Amino acid sequence: MDRKLSRPFILFGGDYNPDQWDDETIDQDIEVFKKTKINTVTLPVFSWAKLEPSEGIYNFEWLDHILDKLDEAGLSYFLATPTSAQPAWLSRKYPEVLPVDIAGRKRTHGMRVFFCVNSDKFRERAAIIAGKMAERYKDRPGLIGWHVANEYGTYCYCENCQKKFRSWLKERYKTLDELNLRWHTCFWGKTLYDFEEVVVPTELNDDYRFNPAVQLDYMRFITDSTIECYENEAKILKAATPTLPVFTNISGYIKKLDQSKMVSHMDTAGWDNYPWPTDERSFPAMKHDIMRALKGGESYYVMEQSPNQQNWQPYNKLKKPGEVRRLAYQGLAHGSDSSLYFQMRQSVAGQEKFHGAVISHSGRTDTRIIREFTELGGELEKLGDQFICGKADSRIGIVFDWNNWWALELCSGPSKDMDYLREVHRYYKHFYYNNYSVDFLIQDVDYSKYKVIVAPMLYMMKEGIAEKLREFTRNGGILIGTYMTGYADENDRCIYGAYPGPLKDVFGIWVEETDALYQDEYNQIHEIDDDSCSYKCSFLCDLIHTESANTLAVYERDFYAGLPAVTVNSFGNGKAYYIATAPDYEYLDKLINRILVDEKVEPVMKSSGEIEIVKRIKDGDEYIFAINHGNERGIIYIGDNHYKNLLTEDQVTGTIDISAGDVMVMKKGIDK
Amino acid sequence: MDRKLSRPFILFGGDYNPDQWDDETIDQDIEVFKKTKINTVTLPVFSWAKLEPSEGIYNFEWLDHILDKLDEAGLSYFLATPTSAQPAWLSRKYPEVLPVDIAGRKRTHGMRVFFCVNSDKFRERAAIIAGKMAERYKDRPGLIGWHVANEYGTYCYCENCQKKFRSWLKERYKTLDELNLRWHTCFWGKTLYDFEEVVVPTELNDDYRFNPAVQLDYMRFITDSTIECYENEAKILKAATPTLPVFTNISGYIKKLDQSKMVSHMDTAGWDNYPWPTDERSFPAMKHDIMRALKGGESYYVMEQSPNQQNWQPYNKLKKPGEVRRLAYQGLAHGSDSSLYFQMRQSVAGQEKFHGAVISHSGRTDTRIIREFTELGGELEKLGDQFICGKADSRIGIVFDWNNWWALELCSGPSKDMDYLREVHRYYKHFYYNNYSVDFLIQDVDYSKYKVIVAPMLYMMKEGIAEKLREFTRNGGILIGTYMTGYADENDRCIYGAYPGPLKDVFGIWVEETDALYQDEYNQIHEIDDDSCSYKCSFLCDLIHTESANTLAVYERDFYAGLPAVTVNSFGNGKAYYIATAPDYEYLDKLINRILVDEKVEPVMKSSGEIEIVKRIKDGDEYIFAINHGNERGIIYIGDNHYKNLLTEDQVTGTIDISAGDVMVMKKGIDK
Amino acid sequence: MDRKLSRPFILFGGDYNPDQWDDETIDQDIEVFKKTKINTVTLPVFSWAKLEPSEGIYNFEWLDHILDKLDEAGLSYFLATPTSAQPAWLSRKYPEVLPVDIAGRKRTHGMRVFFCVNSDKFRERAAIIAGKMAERYKDRPGLIGWHVANEYGTYCYCENCQKKFRSWLKERYKTLDELNLRWHTCFWGKTLYDFEEVVVPTELNDDYRFNPAVQLDYMRFITDSTIECYENEAKILKAATPTLPVFTNISGYIKKLDQSKMVSHMDTAGWDNYPWPTDERSFPAMKHDIMRALKGGESYYVMEQSPNQQNWQPYNKLKKPGEVRRLAYQGLAHGSDSSLYFQMRQSVAGQEKFHGAVISHSGRTDTRIIREFTELGGELEKLGDQFICGKADSRIGIVFDWNNWWALELCSGPSKDMDYLREVHRYYKHFYYNNYSVDFLIQDVDYSKYKVIVAPMLYMMKEGIAEKLREFTRNGGILIGTYMTGYADENDRCIYGAYPGPLKDVFGIWVEETDALYQDEYNQIHEIDDDSCSYKCSFLCDLIHTESANTLAVYERDFYAGLPAVTVNSFGNGKAYYIATAPDYEYLDKLINRILVDEKVEPVMKSSGEIEIVKRIKDGDEYIFAINHGNERGIIYIGDNHYKNLLTEDQVTGTIDISAGDVMVMKKGIDK
Repeated sequence: MDRKLSRPFILFGGDYNPDQWDDETIDQDIEVFKKTKINTVTLPVFSWAKLEPSEGIYNFEWLDHILDKLDEAGLSYFLATPTSAQPAWLSRKYPEVLPVDIAGRKRTHGMRVFFCVNSDKFRERAAIIAGKMAERYKDRPGLIGWHVANEYGTYCYCENCQKKFRSWLKERYKTLDELNLRWHTCFWGKTLYDFEEVVVPTELNDDYRFNPAVQLDYMRFITDSTIECYENEAKILKAATPTLPVFTNISGYIKKLDQSKMVSHMDTAGWDNYPWPTDERSFPAMKHDIMRALKGGESYYVMEQSPNQQNWQPYNKLKKPGEVRRLAYQGLAHGSDSSLYFQMRQSVAGQEKFHGAVISHSGRTDTRIIREFTELGGELEKLGDQFICGKADSRIGIVFDWNNWWALELCSGPSKDMDYLREVHRYYKHFYYNNYSVDFLIQDVDYSKYKVIVAPMLYMMKEGIAEKLREFTRNGGILIGTYMTGYADENDRCIYGAYPGPLKDVFGIWVEETDALYQDEYNQIHEIDDDSCSYKCSFLCDLIHTESANTLAVYERDFYAGLPAVTVNSFGNGKAYYIATAPDYEYLDKLINRILVDEKVEPVMKSSGEIEIVKRIKDGDEYIFAINHGNERGIIYIGDNHYKNLLTEDQVTGTIDISAGDVMVMKKGIDK
Repeated sequence: MDRKLSRPFILFGGDYNPDQWDDETIDQDIEVFKKTKINTVTLPVFSWAKLEPSEGIYNFEWLDHILDKLDEAGLSYFLATPTSAQPAWLSRKYPEVLPVDIAGRKRTHGMRVFFCVNSDKFRERAAIIAGKMAERYKDRPGLIGWHVANEYGTYCYCENCQKKFRSWLKERYKTLDELNLRWHTCFWGKTLYDFEEVVVPTELNDDYRFNPAVQLDYMRFITDSTIECYENEAKILKAATPTLPVFTNISGYIKKLDQSKMVSHMDTAGWDNYPWPTDERSFPAMKHDIMRALKGGESYYVMEQSPNQQNWQPYNKLKKPGEVRRLAYQGLAHGSDSSLYFQMRQSVAGQEKFHGAVISHSGRTDTRIIREFTELGGELEKLGDQFICGKADSRIGIVFDWNNWWALELCSGPSKDMDYLREVHRYYKHFYYNNYSVDFLIQDVDYSKYKVIVAPMLYMMKEGIAEKLREFTRNGGILIGTYMTGYADENDRCIYGAYPGPLKDVFGIWVEETDALYQDEYNQIHEIDDDSCSYKCSFLCDLIHTESANTLAVYERDFYAGLPAVTVNSFGNGKAYYIATAPDYEYLDKLINRILVDEKVEPVMKSSGEIEIVKRIKDGDEYIFAINHGNERGIIYIGDNHYKNLLTEDQVTGTIDISAGDVMVMKKGIDK
Repeated sequence: MDRKLSRPFILFGGDYNPDQWDDETIDQDIEVFKKTKINTVTLPVFSWAKLEPSEGIYNFEWLDHILDKLDEAGLSYFLATPTSAQPAWLSRKYPEVLPVDIAGRKRTHGMRVFFCVNSDKFRERAAIIAGKMAERYKDRPGLIGWHVANEYGTYCYCENCQKKFRSWLKERYKTLDELNLRWHTCFWGKTLYDFEEVVVPTELNDDYRFNPAVQLDYMRFITDSTIECYENEAKILKAATPTLPVFTNISGYIKKLDQSKMVSHMDTAGWDNYPWPTDERSFPAMKHDIMRALKGGESYYVMEQSPNQQNWQPYNKLKKPGEVRRLAYQGLAHGSDSSLYFQMRQSVAGQEKFHGAVISHSGRTDTRIIREFTELGGELEKLGDQFICGKADSRIGIVFDWNNWWALELCSGPSKDMDYLREVHRYYKHFYYNNYSVDFLIQDVDYSKYKVIVAPMLYMMKEGIAEKLREFTRNGGILIGTYMTGYADENDRCIYGAYPGPLKDVFGIWVEETDALYQDEYNQIHEIDDDSCSYKCSFLCDLIHTESANTLAVYERDFYAGLPAVTVNSFGNGKAYYIATAPDYEYLDKLINRILVDEKVEPVMKSSGEIEIVKRIKDGDEYIFAINHGNERGIIYIGDNHYKNLLTEDQVTGTIDISAGDVMVMKKGIDK
């Protein structure tokens, strides 16, 4: 089995920082890995200072020694370039590597991911150490890929960044006239007569919040700069090991960089999954589905999760028994080929000393967490490579776009509660809780395979998107749109003519005004053919006029009582629903399910109880993941088909039970 | 009709930024102006960069072209100097024009109103462009006045400001001894031995909040500097067009500059009225009355309002149907000669892209807002110049002072809830809701025409004020004072001897201590001759001793139960009431109405329902404005007099109805 | 009576700043002092600028004059060096004396205590003026001690501090290897190869919150630097007057400097006691007991209290009648030999103009406060020197440590609600409300005199502490420990092996995990032999395993229901209780009282009602302080002993009443 050329097993393990402890401890760790079936570790993420004690002087022996032990134990590993934490001597000798923050303050050495991605000196030194590692370790038996740096995401506002931003703008817009036009500088008298007049958007001019066009481009520029910084190392690693994946991990907080563009430069997506105890279970599920979209539906890696509580939340609650397992399977169900964790052994000091770990400060192996890992490791080993690289098969798509996210949340008005992820989740969860498979549509994917596409708050009309949605609908698709759709172009210039701009004819309506509701305020709607049943709605209320659309529901209160709140328009062979306000869960559930029934879109399976059911398909074989997130027994309605429970090897069909908190992985078909 | 020499009609229209769009759009806009009877626009507020592409090179042709169109359409306009947004090239070439903020940070180019008012270079360039405009446009037929810059209010703390502040202090106090005395530098060892030791009050020394004397003078200095900056342009404009008004607009947030001093340098007051949806209707009414006071009772201009929702509030609620009209008439009722709006056409980009406008992004003219504007425009045209320049006729005055506002809110203790405007409103609203006319007494006005004067929290005893109030009372006036009165001199030095300092004998009491109540805490009071009825009181509770005063009400709780809470003192021919705590609405209403009945002060008219009734008098003619802010029909008790309803031309007398949300403007007398 | 050689009377008076007013006022003040029996003032705290108008030019005449008056009136005084407020000329001439703040901003002159404690220039000038004062005033009859500067506590981050910090580290750790080891720099790649790479922990690198090891050492370094700065003056004063106490006053906010180390360099502890109106009465009592611990049980001075409301709280409530007296006796009861106040006369201006004072702005002497002071002064005079230098006699100790405080609150996780003082108070108050005497164990005190020692959240295991506690328990002591005990060494490196680390065997348990509860969340516990009675618990819940310990109480909820929540372990001749969560008051009260009864620890006296009872012993005589903090009559159970009420001279025995709000001071024995 050549671990380098395929994905032969589910990766299980995670971040490992053995340079913090001695040989004896490492040997104990490896014993734990064996016991728990941990097969993969990531290292040495932050060890630049240890690997390069002074400029050009390298010390790899300690790492060789650890890798020898790992190889000897038959473990796989991702080798991380250590460049997310430059050595203190580097910051001291070349202060230009330190960033300037949004308040205009030159940072001093400290933290991690604390460098200017545009620093030539940083890139020079990072490329050299990446090259040294590639050269030295490329033939290591355990090496299964390269993990570049860690959780990129630092914004810098130094003179050098400003200079490069100006060049980036010149490259993008060519002329000042075009820049002035795109940035609509005629507003507030901001006309530029020289690219040198461009100033980075910071707290020093408030452009970061009051000048959305500039801020949007700065976010694009930092994304591009970060990609350059990534590729600076990645290209060297790729050259050394062309068959191994090169990538980096996306921080759980995924907004600040355009991850879709980032990942397009990587061999695979890698994600750090840190749900909050208060998150609904649909929320991390949605993020998994977004991750799967980053490579157009290809499977990805969960690179980090916490084996137990985190340390950086206000109240770090313990993970409940079985919760680690359920979260692991949730990832595998939605398209991950790994279940990796930060961290294998808890650090004894520093900011993360209380972050959960497989091996805690106690050093003991008779812990709940190690018992749970041992159980999980055994299961994953048993599952082997069966569903690895398996894909989803969705007839439902949700449009998702980083630029739209940025632009929407940069808006001043109509409501401060603009939260794109929350709003996307408002629609996503209706599919999720009914066991429908959903693809997020991020890239230039083909829409023709989908029956229903939801485009929540698609504020920014990037070039071509309106035409794609029109074509999709005309060809028989069902489009669901909402308030705050069709407003602006990619530079945040609002489109003349009423919203939803280029989609007005598709939806058959136009929006005259939009009211904002306080957090504790609501209006009510009822369906036009049933005024006995009222539903609350909140957040925003569009006042719309139907042109060709039919009204499905109307407002009940305020001066716009009686105006349409939900409409549907026949367009070509399809239909376009417009949801002019944020209805409560009950109404949306009713509306969406009615649409899905009408359109004969089927859930993966039906169930009752708090069951999540997800399907992956590989080589024509169907794998069903069923996760009972509840405290009660649940029921899965399998129907006439037959499945094999891969964990118990039982055959199942008809109506089956799933215990509270339990997980099932089933393969379709009679077991041969 | 010469628009330049008088105020021949109610100004209706507002800010217009046509340099953002093309000729065709401008023509459409003008059509809308005609349709809606919009007669006045303000431009080109932020267009410096467009007018002066590089130092000394001017481009006025585009503006000529727009003004030609406006003139051709017979529109009036205020020409704005564009100096509130200096061009980027200016900030780049002369960084000294950029301000240093209170955190000591040099700002970078961006935003608007983002320059140092003390910069010589800024003033030099501003004067030149103002002069160019004056020269070029002074004879334009549509020109009706000059609007200098926009909403001044930037505080700067640069070296140059510090230097000028020292000179300003030397000018004001002459000697260091005097400065040390006035600033009471002996506290905390701050004695100064050289004017060069004066440091601006910023976050770097915390003097802006912990050294009230310095901060007060810095606020005065910035006011004076802003006046200089204003006059730098105004004097040029005035010289070019001696008969036209020159002024600037006061930001809705009116605290940061001493507007009474600012406006004393202008030909008229101009105000931007942006009430919050949560404001009581009495709150903008009070601000209107304050604006009327800025020129000693002369009418003023409302320069900005929002035609619909704002964009910069957390939740930007739509204006209800009729709300724009009611707000317009509220302004006209209280002394405005205009109803102007920001903005005529919505910008497609930038921070304010969602701010309400007459013409929205939709570009459509079949909108609710345009319908409402058309109706309102027709009414205003019909009203003509009848009540323009009309004045109020009040027998009630409320003392209001910017320096007092500053000093009071700079106090550390006794309560953090010091909010002068809220406290003034606490008393104002009793007059307002009972249709009494109130003048604010800001300048050195003659008190003798008033029967009742309220001086809420008159903490600062500026030279002469105590004598004026004493004289007013001695001569038969009714003075109403409150807690936090008579504490400090104009440098915030507390007066030895008990509060209320020089007014002790007028009120016939002295204050021993003052308790602060938590926000949800209250005490209770009852009138001394009726202990069956208790009223809540909150905020502060003075523990006072009567000397010559009689006690009207006493506290019920805490260790000061039984001590006086409200007193009255006969002083000369008048009386002085002291209100030692903040009683609830019911008690204050009872007390104030009893005083007004006793003193035979009459309301404008009586009414029932949520009706606001205000009077303006012009050339002996009385105009009554009645605005029904409620959702129910209201009643106005006109009595035996006869009035003409100017909007319907009906004659009215006796008891009449006013529909929910409706407005009436009536002229006294039988129509001839 | 030589005031210089002993403590002949209770110091009564406080801060006095007569350089703010004229001779006549000073004479009036002295009259008030005489009337109220005020015997001691502190001056001239902030008068450097007045004493040294320019470098090397001194003006002491005005102070001579005031001291003459004080001496003539027979008053005692502490002379303060005025160095907490350097003159403006000094900051201007030598900007290096101004600090750099945690945001990296160079401060400008202003405020007070606003200098860099490491500035050589500051120290040079401070030493000179201290020397001048010592020389000039050392033989003054009224002088009873030296008060150095005022409320130290400024953190500076200037280049000079960074340089000295590096030297301090070199001194402390000798080698880089040791520094890297102690700071565990292998985490996040922070290995240092040169002491010059050390950077101060600020907002510029976030090390102040994300790098606890560095921050801890910086706090130690600033403590040491402040001690040097203090000693720079103190040694000169001591040399001039070897028999007089030299010390400074500790700010009410006592965390930022290691006060135990600070005070070890002083002749006595001096404390500024500013309770909040919302503080439980046990909270200032606890702080008093901590103050008494700073010199190993010696009496101390309360240097400041407020004679009435403060000014710097959000809502500054008046002190209730009698509250000043009760707070004065609370201090005297717990070990203070003074009741001093800020301030004698209210300043007329500046940040503290509304801070309570004996003589208010009114200047009147017929005020409630002066009446209360007069009564209190008379009592204190009557009490004479009877219990001065008297000590407590406690069999209960609570471990308290500044380094532990810092480290605990620097932790990221498990809960953001880490509040050491609150947690210590959680245990302290059970002793307090039952009239048990408690010693805080700060220094290297002998544990053998104690029967019960509580060590709340003893997170940091400094060298030797585990051995001391083990020895104490082995020898028959009762140790009570809690969650978050036994985690880290003095550099915040967690200890391998389960918590409570080196105390595992003493407690006979180990901690596997710790859950964090939301602020409004709770679990429940019940005693293992009585499941009828449940008690809430909150904050943290350890999941522990007993080894040799017995379980007393178990959790009722969550997945750890049934696991031990409270345990006891027999260890040698003693017992160790482990409290794994924060139980409610009722349960803790039950548990602690059961332990005290078992161990035959007696309260000072028993009482019912809201009575505080505290004992001081001097020369074998017992003095009982009884303070009724309630609004109801209370009862004290004296039993068969006889006491003399020192205020009334009555003899008391048996069961006696104490009126609402009243105070008693009793001496044991039949009056001879």
